[in-house]
Order: sequence, then structure tokens, then C-alpha cells
Amino acid sequence: MSSELLKPFDRVRALRFDQNGLALLDQRILPQSSQWLPMADADAVADAIRALIVRGAPAIGIAAAYALVLTARAIAARPDAERRAEFAAAAARLREARPTAVNLMWAIDRMLGRWGSNPDPALVQAEAEAIDAEDLAANYRMAMTGAEFIVQGSGVLTHCNTGSLATAGLGTALGVIRAAFAQGKLSQVYAGETRPWLQGARLTVWELLQDQIPACLIGDSAGAWLLAQGKVQWVIVGADRICANGDTANKIGTLSLAVAARHFGARFMVVAPTSTVDFGSADGSAIHIEERDPRELTEYAGVRVAAPGVAAWNPVFDVTPASLIDVIVTERGAVERPDAERMQVLW
Amino acid sequence: MSSELLKPFDRVRALRFDQNGLALLDQRILPQSSQWLPMADADAVADAIRALIVRGAPAIGIAAAYALVLTARAIAARPDAERRAEFAAAAARLREARPTAVNLMWAIDRMLGRWGSNPDPALVQAEAEAIDAEDLAANYRMAMTGAEFIVQGSGVLTHCNTGSLATAGLGTALGVIRAAFAQGKLSQVYAGETRPWLQGARLTVWELLQDQIPACLIGDSAGAWLLAQGKVQWVIVGADRICANGDTANKIGTLSLAVAARHFGARFMVVAPTSTVDFGSADGSAIHIEERDPRELTEYAGVRVAAPGVAAWNPVFDVTPASLIDVIVTERGAVERPDAERMQVLW
Repeated sequence: MSSELLKPFDRVRALRFDQNGLALLDQRILPQSSQWLPMADADAVADAIRALIVRGAPAIGIAAAYALVLTARAIAARPDAERRAEFAAAAARLREARPTAVNLMWAIDRMLGRWGSNPDPALVQAEAEAIDAEDLAANYRMAMTGAEFIVQGSGVLTHCNTGSLATAGLGTALGVIRAAFAQGKLSQVYAGETRPWLQGARLTVWELLQDQIPACLIGDSAGAWLLAQGKVQWVIVGADRICANGDTANKIGTLSLAVAARHFGARFMVVAPTSTVDFGSADGSAIHIEERDPRELTEYAGVRVAAPGVAAWNPVFDVTPASLIDVIVTERGAVERPDAERMQVLW
Repeated sequence: MSSELLKPFDRVRALRFDQNGLALLDQRILPQSSQWLPMADADAVADAIRALIVRGAPAIGIAAAYALVLTARAIAARPDAERRAEFAAAAARLREARPTAVNLMWAIDRMLGRWGSNPDPALVQAEAEAIDAEDLAANYRMAMTGAEFIVQGSGVLTHCNTGSLATAGLGTALGVIRAAFAQGKLSQVYAGETRPWLQGARLTVWELLQDQIPACLIGDSAGAWLLAQGKVQWVIVGADRICANGDTANKIGTLSLAVAARHFGARFMVVAPTSTVDFGSADGSAIHIEERDPRELTEYAGVRVAAPGVAAWNPVFDVTPASLIDVIVTERGAVERPDAERMQVLW
């Protein structure tokens, strides 16, 4: 199957960068409303990343790259020393917006390098566009690579949103699911709702419906029961950071599914571009796990749910050890039964 | 420790039956509002059970028992054949309200037996009051028995609501947690929010705060990550039906926690009165698992969340195999490493 066949499954964009500047699709209010928010400068983008207007590890890397194009343009006429300080400060503020996703750091480092060697805004823009285009191309390659592991008649379960909204297009885990569907292999796609932010219920299901892929929403806690009934052969997820040994940080709830998949004999696939791999982190113990506002759990849409005064623990990610992962799929190929040695092929 | 010390932890009632009749505390709107709904007849109670105005396996059994007192009174002056048909029909409608919880069937059977031997409403009322009082007494015994397994400085994780709101008072799993807290053994109590109905966020946390027990709310999918960090020594849950071999049906998400507890070396306790044990079901494969309206997942408080047109799978319970349970605590004692043979002591 040619990857041309995947084009119909790639309709949505999380951001656009054109003569009008940079705009982000507000993912907080999807799918009820489709609203594009113009971004005035890099600080607006940093705020948007923090507020989850744009989310998904690859997408926030791309958004940060374009944000630095805005900065490069704004400071082009300034004296060199001032310019350097401003560009570095903008990069630092973007970096702080979300600590766990390594693509953000990777994209910012790449933009810093490009700007450092020549601060011409046109060249800086070309670098951001390259990051964007390379991510899309990587997704097409990963989709084809990952789909090879899936046999005819499989049920799959995914978590969070890893589709076009989380990337430059097509998606990581959702790209593999789209390719397997296009190949006629899938009996059913299950999507966990992904509390507290409901990326599965709001975003993944919306993307799948647009592609007419049969989607079934489940509560996150129903995953083990679904697996116990043998309805799922593969759990397929994305990643926010993959360590040198294959340990993977991803949306909270991923570890629970990995443990259940192993227990009930289903297989577990992580799909992410190599920009997500952090060879500087030996294993999962090195990863800083972002914790967000407890009100994401104690309130719903601004309305109090839990009794006032209760504490809440709201980690956004968890770390799945490599030992529970059957395969990591990247644009450079797949690593089965990942460990520090096998991961070396991705260097 | 005398069970007298547990009295301060038993402040809430799910229902009241007095000279004004039967009233249920509307658990759909707790903790924001405390509203008592008068129940005109057994059909109103069946509707209330179905709508989750009252929930929790022991509490719905008790509510059904009092509902049949209302029926016994209403039909007392009718001819015998008509009376028999009416009482049986009321019992059947109550039974259908929720299929999984065995306490409901057990309480109805007991009321049918009582009424059949003598339809005097005063005697029928005494039977319902006995069911109520015996459940409360069982909870006190289970609390003391279960707490013996917990060592000083433990963290515990519970799921759904198993407290005074789910029983005649004190609770099953929450009764054990209350006793362990009263004995100074607990470092922290974690409560899963329990999607889709948020019994953990709305009810459990509210009960714990009233007792000044340190409670921390987590998303259901964060349970495995919490266990991975060694912060929890015991996962403690209730049950809706326990089979002859120890397989246990309980709120969806229980299985996920049991698998994770085993994987990460925490222990797993089920707390339920013997009225929850169904020796007529050999194992979990025999249990009818209720599925509720998909809108509990696709909507929130009447507002659409998921993209229109998506399917959703909303099983209310799952079945945890006995092999993943370290101990089942009942008012007749504890069964460690339950199996069909060891469960015989509860006959």
C-alpha cells in the first residue's frame, strides 16, 4: 500500500502559518466549536501551550518553532546583543511552558541553532517549516511501519489524542490506526476518554468519525475489562518522551493500560518520531513529570464536583517501563522489545 | 479497639424510614446539595435505584426492603390472591432495577419469605429493619476485621463509594479505612474519581472530609502510577457480587486496580457482607454485567462532550478474578487467597 492512500485521513490541522501569521485551533473547546486563535508573539504561544490550546508533543514543538519565527521577525532590526538576549529569552519562556514533552526542547534547540548561525527571518521560517514538514513525513512512515505489526481482524485501544491535532498531521499512534484501517485490518477502534482533559472523548473520537473509522468511546478505567475479554489485540499510544532504554513518558493512564495489556496477553505499541527520543535520559527515573492544577479533577467546566477542601493529585503523565512495551515505532524503523542496546539503532 | 470508637465516623445515612414514610438522600446531586426525596411506593424506589438516587449494593438492598414495606401496607386490605400477585410484581420490578448487585436479590428474597409466612405490615417492617440493622452491625465487624491486615504508616487507595452512603452506615471498604484511620495506621487515603458517575469525587471524598480523614482525589487512570511509586500498600474496594470461588464483580475500574496492585506488589482487599456472596454463581463468567446509557460517557451534566454520533461502551462493573484478591473480608471473617474451597467457611 502506498502512503498516498493515507491522504484522505489527514484533514485536520492544529495550526496554520501563512501571510496572516500564526494561528492555533483552540483544542480546549473542540469538538463543539472550531475557533482559530491568532498568536501575536512567542509569549502568546507559550501561554497557549500552557493552557492546552495546542497540545500533543509534536504539535507543541512545531508551534514553538513558528513562535520563534515571530520572534526572529520582531527583533530583526535590533542591535545584535539585544537581539541575542531577546531570542534566548523567548526560547526559554517557550521551554518552560511544558516540562515533560521532549519535542518542545528538541524543536527549540533546533531553532536556536538555526537562528544562531543566521538570524535572517526567512531562513528561520524555512527551519520551522522543515520541522513541520519532517514531522508530517515521519508520521506517514510510522503509520506504514506500525500497521505491519497488526493482523487482520484486530481490535485496538488507544489513549489520549495522537492524531492530526497532536502532530503536523495524520498522527503517531492514530496514524498507525489509520493505516491499519485503510488496509482493512481493524475490527474496532476503542478510545479511552482520557481524564481529566478528555482528549480521547473530545478529540480522538472526532478525528476518527471524520475518517469514518468505527470508534467506540470507553471510560479509562474500563480498559482492563475490555482487554480481559480479548477484544483488543493491540494497545497503541504516542509518547511525550522516550528514554535511552525505551522507558516512555506518556499521558497519565498509559502505564495502567500497559500493565493490563501484559496481564491479559495483548501487545503494546508506542509510536513517536525520533524527536521524542531523549538519549540524554538513561531511564524513566530521570523524567520530570508535570503536575497540573488539582481543579482539573475537582471541577468540571468551572463547576465544582468534589467536596470543597479536598486535595487532589493530578500528574499529567506516567512512565511505562520498556519491559512492558512490545514495540516502539519511529520514522527510522521499529524497535521490538526495546532496551538500551536495541534502542541504539535510532541514534 | 472497641467498635464504639467508630461511632464518630458514622454520621451519614442514605435513607430514612420513619412515621413520615421512606425517603432517600438524592446521591445524584451530592455534595453540592443535600435533598431528601420522599418515596410514595415501591415503583418509585425501583425508579430511584435505576436512576442512582440511591446506589451501593447494600444500600439498594435495604431501600428495596423498605420499599416492600410500603407495598405490604398498601395492599394489606386486598383479597389474598390479588395481594400475592401485587407483592410479587412489586418485588419483580425492584429486582429488575439493577441486575448485578446480589444484595438487592438477597434482600428481596428475604422480604418475600417474610411476607409469605405472614403479610402483617408490622412484621414485614420488622424484617426490613432487621436487614438494615444487620448490615450496620456487619459493617462494624468488617471494619475491625479488615483493619487488622493494615500495618502502621500505610497508604490506601479506594474506588467508587463504599461508605455510609452505600450501606446502612459506616461502609464496607470505607469502614475498614475508617477503622484503620481511627487506629492511627494510615498515612494517606487516595480515592479514584470513579468515572463516569464520579462516586469517588463526589461521595467518598465528602464522607472522608466529614471525618477529617486525609483524602486525596486522583483520576482513575492515575492508580497504576500511584502504585508504581510505592505510595499505596493496600487497594481496598467493596463488591456488588462475590461468586462461590471468590471472583468479584465491583465498579468498573476495580479490575484495572487489581492487576496494577499485583504488578507493583501492593495488596488487594475486598470488603462486603455475606449478603453480597452468591454461592449460586460458581465463578465470574456467570455474572450479568449491567451496561448503562452511553450518554454517561458522551455527555457531562447534560452537555455534549464527545463528537455526535460516536458509539460508547459503558459497562458499570467488571469482574476481578479471585487470583488477584489477597483477602475478602466479611462479617463472618476474612478469607485470605480466596478460592472455591476457602470460600466455604462463609456458608
